[in-house]
Amino acid sequence: MVVILKQNFTLEQMEEAVRSMEAGGVKVMVSRGSETTILGAEGDASRLDEEFLSQLPGVERVMRVSEPFKKANRKFHPDDSVIEIGPGVRVGGQKLAVIAGPCSVESQEQITGVARDVKTAGASALRGGAYKPRTSPYAFQGMGTKGIDFLMEAREATGLPIVTELMSADQLPLFEECVDVIQIGARNMQNFDLLKKVGRTSKPILLKRGLSSTIEEWIMSAEYILAGGNPNVILCERGIRTFETYTRNTLDLSAVLAVKQMCHLPVVVDPSHACGKAWMVERMSLAAIAAGADGLIVEVHNDPKNALCDGAQSITPAQFGDLMGKVGTIAACVGRSV
Amino acid sequence: MVVILKQNFTLEQMEEAVRSMEAGGVKVMVSRGSETTILGAEGDASRLDEEFLSQLPGVERVMRVSEPFKKANRKFHPDDSVIEIGPGVRVGGQKLAVIAGPCSVESQEQITGVARDVKTAGASALRGGAYKPRTSPYAFQGMGTKGIDFLMEAREATGLPIVTELMSADQLPLFEECVDVIQIGARNMQNFDLLKKVGRTSKPILLKRGLSSTIEEWIMSAEYILAGGNPNVILCERGIRTFETYTRNTLDLSAVLAVKQMCHLPVVVDPSHACGKAWMVERMSLAAIAAGADGLIVEVHNDPKNALCDGAQSITPAQFGDLMGKVGTIAACVGRSV
Amino acid sequence: MVVILKQNFTLEQMEEAVRSMEAGGVKVMVSRGSETTILGAEGDASRLDEEFLSQLPGVERVMRVSEPFKKANRKFHPDDSVIEIGPGVRVGGQKLAVIAGPCSVESQEQITGVARDVKTAGASALRGGAYKPRTSPYAFQGMGTKGIDFLMEAREATGLPIVTELMSADQLPLFEECVDVIQIGARNMQNFDLLKKVGRTSKPILLKRGLSSTIEEWIMSAEYILAGGNPNVILCERGIRTFETYTRNTLDLSAVLAVKQMCHLPVVVDPSHACGKAWMVERMSLAAIAAGADGLIVEVHNDPKNALCDGAQSITPAQFGDLMGKVGTIAACVGRSV
Amino acid sequence: MVVILKQNFTLEQMEEAVRSMEAGGVKVMVSRGSETTILGAEGDASRLDEEFLSQLPGVERVMRVSEPFKKANRKFHPDDSVIEIGPGVRVGGQKLAVIAGPCSVESQEQITGVARDVKTAGASALRGGAYKPRTSPYAFQGMGTKGIDFLMEAREATGLPIVTELMSADQLPLFEECVDVIQIGARNMQNFDLLKKVGRTSKPILLKRGLSSTIEEWIMSAEYILAGGNPNVILCERGIRTFETYTRNTLDLSAVLAVKQMCHLPVVVDPSHACGKAWMVERMSLAAIAAGADGLIVEVHNDPKNALCDGAQSITPAQFGDLMGKVGTIAACVGRSV
Repeated sequence: MVVILKQNFTLEQMEEAVRSMEAGGVKVMVSRGSETTILGAEGDASRLDEEFLSQLPGVERVMRVSEPFKKANRKFHPDDSVIEIGPGVRVGGQKLAVIAGPCSVESQEQITGVARDVKTAGASALRGGAYKPRTSPYAFQGMGTKGIDFLMEAREATGLPIVTELMSADQLPLFEECVDVIQIGARNMQNFDLLKKVGRTSKPILLKRGLSSTIEEWIMSAEYILAGGNPNVILCERGIRTFETYTRNTLDLSAVLAVKQMCHLPVVVDPSHACGKAWMVERMSLAAIAAGADGLIVEVHNDPKNALCDGAQSITPAQFGDLMGKVGTIAACVGRSV
Repeated sequence: MVVILKQNFTLEQMEEAVRSMEAGGVKVMVSRGSETTILGAEGDASRLDEEFLSQLPGVERVMRVSEPFKKANRKFHPDDSVIEIGPGVRVGGQKLAVIAGPCSVESQEQITGVARDVKTAGASALRGGAYKPRTSPYAFQGMGTKGIDFLMEAREATGLPIVTELMSADQLPLFEECVDVIQIGARNMQNFDLLKKVGRTSKPILLKRGLSSTIEEWIMSAEYILAGGNPNVILCERGIRTFETYTRNTLDLSAVLAVKQMCHLPVVVDPSHACGKAWMVERMSLAAIAAGADGLIVEVHNDPKNALCDGAQSITPAQFGDLMGKVGTIAACVGRSV
Repeated sequence: MVVILKQNFTLEQMEEAVRSMEAGGVKVMVSRGSETTILGAEGDASRLDEEFLSQLPGVERVMRVSEPFKKANRKFHPDDSVIEIGPGVRVGGQKLAVIAGPCSVESQEQITGVARDVKTAGASALRGGAYKPRTSPYAFQGMGTKGIDFLMEAREATGLPIVTELMSADQLPLFEECVDVIQIGARNMQNFDLLKKVGRTSKPILLKRGLSSTIEEWIMSAEYILAGGNPNVILCERGIRTFETYTRNTLDLSAVLAVKQMCHLPVVVDPSHACGKAWMVERMSLAAIAAGADGLIVEVHNDPKNALCDGAQSITPAQFGDLMGKVGTIAACVGRSV
Repeated sequence: MVVILKQNFTLEQMEEAVRSMEAGGVKVMVSRGSETTILGAEGDASRLDEEFLSQLPGVERVMRVSEPFKKANRKFHPDDSVIEIGPGVRVGGQKLAVIAGPCSVESQEQITGVARDVKTAGASALRGGAYKPRTSPYAFQGMGTKGIDFLMEAREATGLPIVTELMSADQLPLFEECVDVIQIGARNMQNFDLLKKVGRTSKPILLKRGLSSTIEEWIMSAEYILAGGNPNVILCERGIRTFETYTRNTLDLSAVLAVKQMCHLPVVVDPSHACGKAWMVERMSLAAIAAGADGLIVEVHNDPKNALCDGAQSITPAQFGDLMGKVGTIAACVGRSV
């Protein structure tokens, strides 16, 4: 943390700023120039509050030098984290993880059928929503616990680990018992109560980026989970909200690179929610792998045009099979495999 | 809902589209031109799923004609809703509501002191955070239940109703018993589980607009609460996230006008979080009242430069007193009073 | 300018950074701590290139302390600039300037009629487009030089100074001879060639904020004109592009406050283009004046529903008359007059 | 174009809407339901003005069914356009085009040296700025005509066609005579005067997407050039402005897919300006090719850390050589070559 004082600061104001910084547990280095006086923090500055310091009288500007996240920071944990989400299924290593399945669980036949299809095509895990975040209270809200049961049967039938979204802390015990990866959706990325609670489990957490979250805020939400004691966090880029409305969101592949440089956690990409158009999924999947993502999460539905939710962005099992072939070819070009 | 078919649609595709619309409970009017064929829904189209219809084969484009919210819609409820938040304290009528207080409750003396000051200056209610949503897990998270106790003592001392943020459904029974207005923060605006739960109480809810929520999504979140049976919703515009970084957010005063035209719920404005700069609060408060807001929620701290949170955007009780005088003058110009 | 070195910088890298800063004409103050080493620039840092310095090996981060604009900066020019745009007509003083008129000049009768109406209602100047920036090459592009002639006749008839948009440097001689205020539109805010050319005239320039320009970029575009020798710049906030689509743009009134704090130039607000809806113009005008704008630019059309352009956002002369009355009342509350 | 009438419309209002549509040259199909009445345009609706119609009394909403661009539209021109930019050098075919070179031309040795290096590595064309759009009037503005001379010498030495940015219509005759591809920068994407003027030449135009331009606005700017008679337009995605500040802009690769579906013009990607960080260029280049771009435009500088402009985002000739090898491998996976 570096604090720059105003040109006309008083000694008293400087002392107040120094005291405030020291109260945060750092040593302060003062360098006075004829025009600019700078206070530099030495030591762990993660407890210093940038906003607080910036409004002290005498302070012109405050700049953070180091990232505010410690546990997620690659500087202190240079190796890639690899998260095990099922027997022999890992996210973050040389092998790409591809999570596939329908937006919503709709019936036992549907989810088991899709699970078999994506397993055959080479998927690593099965996704399917049992509780659905919907903008409208009148839209289909998911099958609830029955959906979880059907997912478990699909796992039983195929061996694929199951990934599903947790929307309420009440259901955490159920999720801990039944599912393999707990998804925290984009709209709950800063539901800090939920982050703290999943931080106390040891289940792998798939943390989607919020609609308008900066990369730093996203990593800070992962830090909440890590700080709670759960090291198993997988990040998921799913597009951000911008002025462009042709696509549902704007897929930010440069965020994948940025996160992987600053942070040791694996990052997967969701091209289905990012674009909202099934015909874009294949090409954006290939782009994500070329960019360096550790995997994909793709919506696959046996009958997209009759899907209860997000049919417009779902591909068929046959299309998914094609996609996996092409993903494998691109993966090989960048030193990965499927 | 209007559905436009592709130029080369087949009869079968048209029938499928018609059936899908009818399944949502509407009658369908078909009009065929030489180039364009249009399907119009007659009746309550709120159960039709725009995305689902738009991906049917044969469908070119889908356009919603009526708003997807029914209970919040001014068309069916032309009069302004007025929400009573305490004995004789109302939000939404001719008299403006001004909610004031510190970002966080820090001690009994602090909150009661500020409460007395803002009461004297003419505030309608007291705000103060007991549970704080913070980007960093290492930042001050609020005093918790002790904070609620202190708020209740401040209410006891001044008669001001108290407004505080609910972050976890676990605390809802406590909030129902102790507080007068439950705030749902911007980061939880689409925490649908929490919305459903506060929809089952009858407490007034202050619903902040999400950082990147459209006006329609914001009203749809209010609709969740109304649909649950709780008619007491106050909307709060607190700035949206844009590319501009000089201010913390960009205050969107045109949203106040838009909401008040489409929806019967009262809208207050939070200039403190919108701008993030104490020196901007006064002018943006006056602008909000001139635009037609039903009130304000303003951060006031006895000692902003030592505030545990958001000091940079808090004004002092003395500044708040000045502000109230000026707000009164502007209010008179637009047919309101404080 | 403050440059922070990487933790593991080499002496050679430090020397390179120092040399690069000195080459920009500043003295460099080095302060070395055990963890952080900081280089502070003393003197005029406006020639230092932030991006260039930030990519030097050994450099962790670069922070600008002072604003990069000198001539527009209030620090070196504390008094408000007041720009004379016609005999006795000033923008920037105690008296508000209200510029009104149609989007496009459509005929002599139309523009002179509107001019008479807005003059009677108290407008300070007449606006009207002769050359129109249109997204589509097939849309009405304006009447061109004939439009300028009609504007001059309207000025002749009413005495109102005329404001119109310059889209091509070719027309600059014509504009210098004929018009009173040259408008640079939002889409040309960073047409640096045009900025340089109008910087060489002495005509007042109305510089609209770009659709996605930061406040700093906007002031830097004014700086181009000032640096060219033309001190007569009026800034115009007209809404920025955000994710919200209910309004045409999002009016950013906090930008008015920000600009007026950093910069001595007057700022007017265009509620018509910002919102794109005639019914919003009155309230947003009042909000702008309450916020501290130095004036307004409002679209007024004799027959909005038959306007050739932007009818949806134009108010009638009668509505403009009402608006002026209300603007006067709000102005009085904030120490201004119309 | 589909126009939906308000529920309580009058016959007179309906007739007015019908007349307004017919005046734009279309036939109108009226379909009246018990609740919704719809007017559908038959024929070429490109002259109908959406905003104008939407503000007519009696009109609830207007929806465009077909895209407003005709010449750029793939519907009427299904085959990909291939633009020849030099003898045997084409953009838009099976072979990818890679344009490389420094941000600015700095000297004859520099530009010819870089040209030789990128030619050896397989580049298709040489880029280099002679006139530079800079946010600050005090920053290096380019070498001007001398820069053009140096580019021509580099072409002479290597045979590479040269691409450089036109900022002023004054220089168009010079550019027509001397350069192979005229670049229109992001900040001039809606400088309609310049678009019209380059539309009258036959030179290939590289049209960068504006910082906050929608995909449709971008294609409409291409339509200006096509409508002027110049069919040789190459589109360039270079990142859009969003709330994220880690990267200079946010590269929108889904826009490449969207444009190529709606429009027959070739699209290249500029990863250097999009990200603003040299270390991101390689991976984002691979992602762009995987997504389906027709080529790249990459900043390559012999000595990035001493570059006069944009050094932070420039790669070295050696890095460019590596990049070309990897681009070739990815290209082969998607049926392209370099």
